[in-house]
Amino acid sequence: MKIQIAQMNPKTLDFSENFKQINTIIRGTNADVLNVFAELSVSGSPLYDTAAYNEITTQASVMAEQLCGEKKSFIIGIPIKNGGEILNALLFVENGEVIDVATKKNLNSFDRVFAKGNGFEITQFEGETVAFGFEEDFDEFVAKGENVDVVICVANNIFEINRQKKTVEKFIPLVRRVKSRFIYVNRCGAEGSYIYNGGSFALNERGDICEQLPLFETCVKTIETSRLKLLTQNAMSKMETMYNAIIWGISDYFLKNRIKKAVIGLSGGIDSALVATLAVNALGKDNVIGVLMPSEYSTDHSVADAEDLANNLQIKHYIIPIKPLYNTTLQSLDAVFAGTPRGLAEENIQARLRCMVLMGIANKTGAALLNTSNKSEAAVGYGTLYGDTSGGIGAIGDVYKTDVWELAKWINRNGVIIPENSISKAPSAELSYGQKDSDSIPEYFILDKILNLYIEERQDKEQIISAGFSTETVEKVLHLIKINEWKRHQCCPCLKISSCTFGIDRLMPVS
Amino acid sequence: MKIQIAQMNPKTLDFSENFKQINTIIRGTNADVLNVFAELSVSGSPLYDTAAYNEITTQASVMAEQLCGEKKSFIIGIPIKNGGEILNALLFVENGEVIDVATKKNLNSFDRVFAKGNGFEITQFEGETVAFGFEEDFDEFVAKGENVDVVICVANNIFEINRQKKTVEKFIPLVRRVKSRFIYVNRCGAEGSYIYNGGSFALNERGDICEQLPLFETCVKTIETSRLKLLTQNAMSKMETMYNAIIWGISDYFLKNRIKKAVIGLSGGIDSALVATLAVNALGKDNVIGVLMPSEYSTDHSVADAEDLANNLQIKHYIIPIKPLYNTTLQSLDAVFAGTPRGLAEENIQARLRCMVLMGIANKTGAALLNTSNKSEAAVGYGTLYGDTSGGIGAIGDVYKTDVWELAKWINRNGVIIPENSISKAPSAELSYGQKDSDSIPEYFILDKILNLYIEERQDKEQIISAGFSTETVEKVLHLIKINEWKRHQCCPCLKISSCTFGIDRLMPVS
Repeated sequence: MKIQIAQMNPKTLDFSENFKQINTIIRGTNADVLNVFAELSVSGSPLYDTAAYNEITTQASVMAEQLCGEKKSFIIGIPIKNGGEILNALLFVENGEVIDVATKKNLNSFDRVFAKGNGFEITQFEGETVAFGFEEDFDEFVAKGENVDVVICVANNIFEINRQKKTVEKFIPLVRRVKSRFIYVNRCGAEGSYIYNGGSFALNERGDICEQLPLFETCVKTIETSRLKLLTQNAMSKMETMYNAIIWGISDYFLKNRIKKAVIGLSGGIDSALVATLAVNALGKDNVIGVLMPSEYSTDHSVADAEDLANNLQIKHYIIPIKPLYNTTLQSLDAVFAGTPRGLAEENIQARLRCMVLMGIANKTGAALLNTSNKSEAAVGYGTLYGDTSGGIGAIGDVYKTDVWELAKWINRNGVIIPENSISKAPSAELSYGQKDSDSIPEYFILDKILNLYIEERQDKEQIISAGFSTETVEKVLHLIKINEWKRHQCCPCLKISSCTFGIDRLMPVS
Repeated sequence: MKIQIAQMNPKTLDFSENFKQINTIIRGTNADVLNVFAELSVSGSPLYDTAAYNEITTQASVMAEQLCGEKKSFIIGIPIKNGGEILNALLFVENGEVIDVATKKNLNSFDRVFAKGNGFEITQFEGETVAFGFEEDFDEFVAKGENVDVVICVANNIFEINRQKKTVEKFIPLVRRVKSRFIYVNRCGAEGSYIYNGGSFALNERGDICEQLPLFETCVKTIETSRLKLLTQNAMSKMETMYNAIIWGISDYFLKNRIKKAVIGLSGGIDSALVATLAVNALGKDNVIGVLMPSEYSTDHSVADAEDLANNLQIKHYIIPIKPLYNTTLQSLDAVFAGTPRGLAEENIQARLRCMVLMGIANKTGAALLNTSNKSEAAVGYGTLYGDTSGGIGAIGDVYKTDVWELAKWINRNGVIIPENSISKAPSAELSYGQKDSDSIPEYFILDKILNLYIEERQDKEQIISAGFSTETVEKVLHLIKINEWKRHQCCPCLKISSCTFGIDRLMPVS
C-alpha cells in the first residue's frame, strides 16, 4: 500500500489556509495513494472550547466535502457533530468517498468539548486491512489482539525535550505485539505555547524504525508499506533540539498572529542576548528591534555588551535611558515614598518603566514584545510583574538559566554572535548599585539542580536534601517557589519545551 | 442519628489552622454525634498538583491521627496515599477509630493527581445504615438501588450565581429514588478565584428541604436525622447573592495571602467606585487606599466624583496627576514617536503609568492592588495590558457592566454611597479628549446581551443575529472577543461568580 505521510502545519480555525495545504498535497497523488494527515488537520489545533460552536463543525464539514470532490484517498482529522455530541474524528476517504470514521475514545485535556468516541476502526484499502485511529487509543487496540496489515496512528504530539525518543520507544514493544507495519503521523508547527515537532515515523512489524520524517519541518513523504527498510539515524543534540524548537515556536507565534516585528529589551545580560539571537534566526534581522534602557544602576559594560550584540546581529536598536522617567516617578510618588528607605518598590518601578517603554514602542510600530525571562527566575519569582515578566510570548521561559548559558555557547560554536562578556559575567538585574542575582537567590548551578528535582522530578524536600543540598538552601528555594505562585499566574505564556512548564503543566494554589 | 454539619472554611495547605478549626468543633460533641466536614477539610482545597508531594499526604495523615486521639466521631476529607496512588478520601471515624473510608471515583478537573477511587461506602453508625461519599459519585450510588437510612454527601461546590438552587434541585429527584434522609455538606470561604458558598442542606426521604445552612458563612449545626422538619426559605436576590459572594472572595483573598491593605485606582467611574465600596465592606475602611491619577484628558467631574466616593467611604486617598510622567515618557520615546499621529500607543502609556504608580504604592505599603476591570471590557479587550488589567485579584472581572450598575444601585438602596454621577454618566476611559466607551464598542445594554448569548449560552453568530441583533454589531463583538484572547491570557485572575468565567471556564486558542 502506498501511503503519503503529510506532516503539515495547520493554523487553528483558518479553514481556508488548511484547505489550501491539504488540497495541494492530495492533488499531487493518484487515488491509490493514501494521504495521511495528523489529528484535527482540517481545523487546526488546539481547538479548546471553540469546537462547541456550530459554525466550527459546519465549516469543517463543508471543507471535508470539498476535499472529497477531488476524488482522492486520504485520512483527515476533523471535529464532527453527531446528534448533540461533538467528536474528534478521522475520516477515511477512498477515491472521494468516506468509507470509515474513527473517533477518539481516550480524550486528553485539549479535548474539552469532545464526547467519548469509539477508538480504532478497521477498514480495507487497496486489498489490505488497515487499522486507523488516534495515538491515545492505540493501547486499547493492541489489547484487542486484532490482526491487520497496517496500523495508522495519528497524533498531535506536543514537543518536549526527549519526547520524540520516548514516543518511538513507547510504540516499539506495542507494535511487536500487534505484528503489523505501523505508521505514525504527527503535525508540526507551533500554536501559542505549544510546539509540535513533526518526526512522523514508520516501523516494520518487528518494531524496527524504517522511516523518520524530520523534526521541526513540514514534510510530505511517500512510502510503500510492503517495502520498509531499516533506517540509521543521527539524533540531534539537546541544544540543537532546543534551538530548533524555540525558533519554530517564535516564528509560528508571529506568523499565526500576523505580526512581523519583535521588540526586545537588551540589558547586556545573557537572557536578552540569547532571545534576540533566536528572534533574528526566527524572524530575520530586519524584524527585530532592540531597546537599551540603561539606568543609573547599569554598569558601563552592560550598554557596551548590548551594543556589541546589536551590531553582531545587525539589528536596529534604540538607547532610551530611564533616569528621567525614574526621577519623575519618584517625584510623583513623594507623598507616599518620602522618608522611606529605598527598596523593592523602587527596584520594581525601574522594571515597570522599561515595560512601559517597550510596550509603547511595540504599540507604535505594530510589533510584539518578546519576553526574555528564564525558567529559574520564574520559579523563584526573581522578576517584576508588569515589568520584565511582560510580553506576547516567552522565548526561554521554559529554559533553566544553566541551559541558557549552554545554548548561548552552542550558538557561538562557530564564532562569536553573543558577546563573550554576556556569557561570562555574573548575572545581575542592575536595579540597585552592585546588585547580583546571587545576593537574593542561590548560584544557578545549585538552584537549577534543586528546581529540576522539585519541579520536573516532583521530589520532596527531604529527598532533595538527601541528594546532597543544604537544608537551608532547599527550604529557601521551595519557599520562594511557593510564595511566587501568584506572580506566575500573570506572567506571559512561554514556549513549552520541558515536561513541566509553568502555566501549563504545573498547577498550584495561589495563597 | 445526631449529625453535626460543620460548614467550615479551611485554608489550603495550612494544616495547623485546619486542625485547630476541626478540633474545636469535634471537641464540643459527644462520640454519638457524627461531625461531618466537607471534601478535603483537613488539607484545604483546591490542592491541584501539591497532593503529589509526599509531605502533603504525610502531614494530612499525622493530623488525622491526632484528631482520632480525641475519641470523637466524624467524617473528614483528606488526601491519602495508597501504595503508589493518591486518593481523595473521606475517613469515617467512630469514637476515635477509622471504621470506613470512601474514595472519590468520578474525579473532576481539580483532582489532577488523584487516582480513581471506589465511590460511595456503606457503614453502620448508632444503629443506622449510613452511605457516605462525594457529590460526584452520588449518581452511581443511586443507580445501585441500595437501601440505607441516611446518605451523607460531601462536596466542595464552587459558587456560581444560581448554582445553590440548581444543586438542591439536582438532588431532590435523586433522593426520592433512594428514599433516604439526605445530608449535603459543603465548605465555605474562598481560595483565589473560587468562592465556596456553603449552603449545606438536609432533605427528608421525600426530597423536601428540611435544613439549610446559610450561604457565605461558616456555621456549625446539629440535626437529629429522625426529626427533620420542613423548612420555608426566602431566597437571596441576585444582587444580594453577588454582593455577598464578592465580599467573601475579597476578604478571604487578603486573609489567606496575609495581606491587610488594598490599593485601588479611583477614576471617578462606576467600576472603581463599586470595587472600592466592596473592598471597604470586605476589609474595613482603614485598609483601603484610593489613588486618583487624573491626566489632561480627565474631566473635572472625574476627580470630584472620585473624591466624593473617598469621602463617603472615609478612606485614605492620594491624588497623583500623571501629566509629568506622561510628558517625560513622550520625551523619552521621541526617537520612535516623533512625527507619528497620537493613537493607541499614547493611550496605553497612560494606563501603564497608572499601573506603575499603583503597584509602586502597593509595594511600598505592603498592600495588594485590587483590579477593577469588568467582564464586558475583558470580553472585548477594552483595557490595557500591564495597565488597568493589573492587580492581585479582580473583584468584578466576572460581572458584566450592566450588572455593575445594578449592583451599585443595590448598594445605594438605603442611601448614597456610590456617587449618583458615577452611576449615571456615560462610561469613558478618558485616555483622549471627549472619549466615550461607545465610540469603540456597542452600548453596554446591547453588548452585554450579545456577550451573554455567546459566552454563557455558547450560541453561534447566526443564532445571536436571529435573536434580533444586527449582523454588523454581532460580527464586530465576536471579532473583538477573538482578537483579545491573548490579552485575557495575562489579565489578573478574578473572582468567579458566573458559569463561564474568563481564565477558568473558557479556554480558547490565542492566535
